Amino acid sequence: MEIKLVKNILEANEVIASENRRLFREKGIYVVNLMGSPGAGKTTLLERTLENLGDKKRIGVIEGDIATSRDAQRIAHYAIPTVQINTGGACHLDGNMVRGGIEELDLDQIDLLIVENVGNLVCPAEFTIGENNKVMIISVPEGDDKPEKYPLMFQVSSLLLLNKIDLLPYLDFDMERFRRDALKVNPKLEIMAVSCKSGEGLDNWFRWIEQRAGRADG
Amino acid sequence: MEIKLVKNILEANEVIASENRRLFREKGIYVVNLMGSPGAGKTTLLERTLENLGDKKRIGVIEGDIATSRDAQRIAHYAIPTVQINTGGACHLDGNMVRGGIEELDLDQIDLLIVENVGNLVCPAEFTIGENNKVMIISVPEGDDKPEKYPLMFQVSSLLLLNKIDLLPYLDFDMERFRRDALKVNPKLEIMAVSCKSGEGLDNWFRWIEQRAGRADG
Repeated sequence: MEIKLVKNILEANEVIASENRRLFREKGIYVVNLMGSPGAGKTTLLERTLENLGDKKRIGVIEGDIATSRDAQRIAHYAIPTVQINTGGACHLDGNMVRGGIEELDLDQIDLLIVENVGNLVCPAEFTIGENNKVMIISVPEGDDKPEKYPLMFQVSSLLLLNKIDLLPYLDFDMERFRRDALKVNPKLEIMAVSCKSGEGLDNWFRWIEQRAGRADG
Repeated sequence: MEIKLVKNILEANEVIASENRRLFREKGIYVVNLMGSPGAGKTTLLERTLENLGDKKRIGVIEGDIATSRDAQRIAHYAIPTVQINTGGACHLDGNMVRGGIEELDLDQIDLLIVENVGNLVCPAEFTIGENNKVMIISVPEGDDKPEKYPLMFQVSSLLLLNKIDLLPYLDFDMERFRRDALKVNPKLEIMAVSCKSGEGLDNWFRWIEQRAGRADG
């Protein structure tokens, strides 16, 4: 019965997410759902992205957090339209929360919407919000054994950013094993190794997102 | 309506968890519910603990994982009674899953039961399993801003192990800010800084758990 219940919740979410998707398409907005564990580097990636693409694209941000607006405060000085969603304890964003969020944005002024999900490697993967692509970020200190242990997140993502590669010298992280296991779970997954701290590898990410956001314009 | 539903699920869980708790007390078993993000160091802490206390206490382990038995395999060579629970996608252990797990253990042969929860800083905090204490482990690379952003986990835990302090020289982690914020969320929280890699600080943890497991004997 609990399983059936979960199925109903997911189906109801899918309906609302489809409406979001239709609206985004109509407005020509490319939407990224950015997911990862607490501390993987979601907000820092967002900061680097706003610094690099802020002049080239009209960007909007939705910040999903359980309890604070700390991440929204961090990016406030970029002068980008930002909406904070507090989930009030819930461990993920869903289509309905995002629908509430976009009501507060002027969608005619946005080409690229980045949604930073709640820090969690599990639950956000289950809920589509109407995004074009799910992007996951995972950091080297989390360990190279994560693809097998948390497969859904890897399965639903189009792109994986492996962050904090500046810490590789201090950790036992088997890059080959990680790549192999991630691709076993999702053979189509694109993988980029980056450091949001040093900037290494981020150009690939900027190019990736810029191309896609461009496409939504046309 | 969704909120009411969640309330019912949590209440049903509380009933089963209470039965677990009664059984643990009857058998004189001290139970720790070990929680933290993916990669925080739960399994490594468990390994260090089995190495240090394995001769002194009769330990049992329940391994909660979404999809694999990799953690259970890691600790298999310690020859400790171990039960693997695969949650089948669920983001936390609950009282009912643990009840299923303990049916496979000889409780008369165990003084200390360590339950390693699913890697997740959010959901496991909501579900009691009948434990004596919730212990959370968080690692330095996750960042010093987590107490405010994920308050429930800090609120429900008796002890916080701050792991991977060997990485402090390579990261911007404000220890004082972290402690202050954690204690603001939960003034009773005990905090220990440790490195499961170098062993630094672990003696405090071994003493903490040994004293409590001892108490359950008497």
